[in-house]
Amino acid sequence: MYQIAMGQAYFKDGIVNKRAGFDYFFRKIPFGGGYVVFAGLADVLEVLESLKFTAEDIDYLESRGFDRDYLDYLRDFRFRGDVYAPREGEPVFATEPVVRVEGTILEAQLVETMLLNILNFESLIATKASRMRSVAEGGILSDFGLRRSQGPGGVLASRAAVIGGFDSTSNVYAAQKYGLRSEGTMAHSFIQWHGDELTAFRKFAEARPDDTTLLVDTYSTLGSGVPNAITVAKEMEERGHRLRAIRLDSGDLAFFARRARAMLDKAGLEYVKIAASNQLDEYVIRSLHHQKAPIDIFGVGTSLVTGQPDGALDGVYKLAFAGEEPRIKISENITKVTLPGRKQIHRFFNGEGMFYGADAVAVSDEAAPELLIHPFEEHKTMQCEGLRSEPLLELVMEQGRPTRESRSIEEIKAYAAERLELLPPEYKRFENPHIYKIGISEKLQTMRNDLRAKYAPQKA
Amino acid sequence: MYQIAMGQAYFKDGIVNKRAGFDYFFRKIPFGGGYVVFAGLADVLEVLESLKFTAEDIDYLESRGFDRDYLDYLRDFRFRGDVYAPREGEPVFATEPVVRVEGTILEAQLVETMLLNILNFESLIATKASRMRSVAEGGILSDFGLRRSQGPGGVLASRAAVIGGFDSTSNVYAAQKYGLRSEGTMAHSFIQWHGDELTAFRKFAEARPDDTTLLVDTYSTLGSGVPNAITVAKEMEERGHRLRAIRLDSGDLAFFARRARAMLDKAGLEYVKIAASNQLDEYVIRSLHHQKAPIDIFGVGTSLVTGQPDGALDGVYKLAFAGEEPRIKISENITKVTLPGRKQIHRFFNGEGMFYGADAVAVSDEAAPELLIHPFEEHKTMQCEGLRSEPLLELVMEQGRPTRESRSIEEIKAYAAERLELLPPEYKRFENPHIYKIGISEKLQTMRNDLRAKYAPQKA
Repeated sequence: MYQIAMGQAYFKDGIVNKRAGFDYFFRKIPFGGGYVVFAGLADVLEVLESLKFTAEDIDYLESRGFDRDYLDYLRDFRFRGDVYAPREGEPVFATEPVVRVEGTILEAQLVETMLLNILNFESLIATKASRMRSVAEGGILSDFGLRRSQGPGGVLASRAAVIGGFDSTSNVYAAQKYGLRSEGTMAHSFIQWHGDELTAFRKFAEARPDDTTLLVDTYSTLGSGVPNAITVAKEMEERGHRLRAIRLDSGDLAFFARRARAMLDKAGLEYVKIAASNQLDEYVIRSLHHQKAPIDIFGVGTSLVTGQPDGALDGVYKLAFAGEEPRIKISENITKVTLPGRKQIHRFFNGEGMFYGADAVAVSDEAAPELLIHPFEEHKTMQCEGLRSEPLLELVMEQGRPTRESRSIEEIKAYAAERLELLPPEYKRFENPHIYKIGISEKLQTMRNDLRAKYAPQKA
Repeated sequence: MYQIAMGQAYFKDGIVNKRAGFDYFFRKIPFGGGYVVFAGLADVLEVLESLKFTAEDIDYLESRGFDRDYLDYLRDFRFRGDVYAPREGEPVFATEPVVRVEGTILEAQLVETMLLNILNFESLIATKASRMRSVAEGGILSDFGLRRSQGPGGVLASRAAVIGGFDSTSNVYAAQKYGLRSEGTMAHSFIQWHGDELTAFRKFAEARPDDTTLLVDTYSTLGSGVPNAITVAKEMEERGHRLRAIRLDSGDLAFFARRARAMLDKAGLEYVKIAASNQLDEYVIRSLHHQKAPIDIFGVGTSLVTGQPDGALDGVYKLAFAGEEPRIKISENITKVTLPGRKQIHRFFNGEGMFYGADAVAVSDEAAPELLIHPFEEHKTMQCEGLRSEPLLELVMEQGRPTRESRSIEEIKAYAAERLELLPPEYKRFENPHIYKIGISEKLQTMRNDLRAKYAPQKA
């Protein structure tokens, strides 16, 4: 609502078409981690391309007291701005300006909430997923979260999970929309319905002989579930099919997986995989591996799709320039003072081609700086002379049109994996990860100090 | 995916049109609290009424290997089942069967994920909102969360927040869709854009003179923000308008509110309200009241719309009967054994008309039981003889049609407030709340024990 209200003020003041630039950035890395996987850009661009006010919307806003002439302007509104961003899947860090939106003040301002909503959420979930990927070794990770996701947000979560390294999803809608691999097993209700577990298994295997996973814990995992699954697997072999997996959904997963594996192997069913679900997160998955639990497929729900225990990435969207003049927000808290003007991020690499552990934020028209200054503690500096660097921000939308074909989800996932591979392990560990440094250039530092002096708070 | 896969098995088995009944219930109350506010029903019924597979959906499923004859059946699929539920806004408790869906096995099974997704999420957020309402005294609560909500889930969150006791939302789409009160202030960017804070305030007040809230912390809250707001409020008075509020968005809110209040009052602006935002939750709001901070409006974001620190209500959907036969799920864990058959919840009242602190779960055709048996510890019983009771579950959808006009959001909100008023305070406190008892009838107990014996796990 406040964006529409501010828009009316800009409109009445006759400055609605003046240019402005906003930065998207976050202040805190979630999960106590050392990086964020940037995700959500394709969804943002899709919304920007189609954004408009319907006649219904306009009527509603009129009922809320907005002026007719302003609403007439909104009726024809389309987003025609420019967007700069890294590739989806890029590891990014706190404080650096990850996305820049340039356009008229109205268009750049109106899109704030939508952009924050999508980037904050998809980046949160892609990051969470990447943490699970990092401990799942060769295991298959499948998103089972839709039932526990926060409303339709689950659709974005399924996409982001795959970017972060998941293999498949139980969410058919998301699979269809984004080209993800869909995967489904069976519910307890199917077995309860038939009453008799063996009959239920047989019926299910007949219906989907090439994609059968049997849920073995409805009555007793080792007492009936696994033996019945073995019986059915043997019957399937006679018809030329192979049972794909059994699924454990309760009890001590490590214990049951080991017992079930032994029973399957003894029956000559080494190829039948074991899937596990029930309150998994990166710590449980790590622990299961540590215990050498023979689990091949991890079905993850709540903690993945809601990002528990962190409900949100704290990304914000701040004005960086008005017309061609850089702008700043001052705060009682130095870490909330913004970085003014048009900026570029330069990522440094070490001699082995790994990320060096420092990004520079510089004014967009300068080269990668050699001296980095701590953004909040000026006396701390860092030399990056002679290091190779890459600029991260590219023009991804120009005058409201994407500058290139959208990438497939597999391409984005591969890019995320490849870039995370370049991030040294100390930034990826769960406990007290190393802090990736962000420094600003001298030129940006000077610009910011000049603006701080200009807008310095008068004392009351 | 698994619902569609199970559907194919039912279809191939020729039993797709047999009747089944499922219960929705949850096992754990979130936030360490003592109750859950039931919400989301209207959205569930809306989806059930319009549910169908498009030609695109069918093509997609065909590409995933489903059988053509089954897909032809799905092409004409509509939900024609019955739904039993309490009124939205009802306080409900762990273990009791809150919603029952009856229909063909296919229709009752297919809707599982959608129903869980919506009820779990809206109930979580309505509950969270009600906790803030319980400590906000007469304060106005406004949802500012869309930027941090989990994708489009924010739209459901805004609705649920109002059910739980919020007054308004900054989410214009949700306001329009659900008839909520929308509310917007201004962003730092508006002040940064103008550079000069006083000019920015004047422009904003001119554009929306009857709904102006000025954000006072862009440069210095007490050094410039509040003094400039006072200047503008005085100018507004000359034109016959009144400044609605100032907003604090950083720093120590209690301290700044007190100082700002004194400055406003000294200027004769007792009517100007103080709004506060920035990382609020029920504990911070309670603390602000405890400190007597003169805050009139609380703008709450992340913790409200994501339900932090709990990302999800753990609601599940379990088969209760097949045809007319009751069904059960057994588990290694006694608390995961389900309650079979068609059931009703009876809520007991004490002599003062307050909730007695116990609900009975009984077979649907029996009267409210006088003896309640603990659902997992049979030796614990409770006498409710002579107490007045009310059945909570009503038929809300019959053969796919809602049985009544939908209620307005104000009506639902009022009902939630009224019913929470009947719940004694010991169930509502944040710290170690009293546990509201759920007991089952002897008849239900007998039915469950018979089924447990029938499906008792054989030892391996």
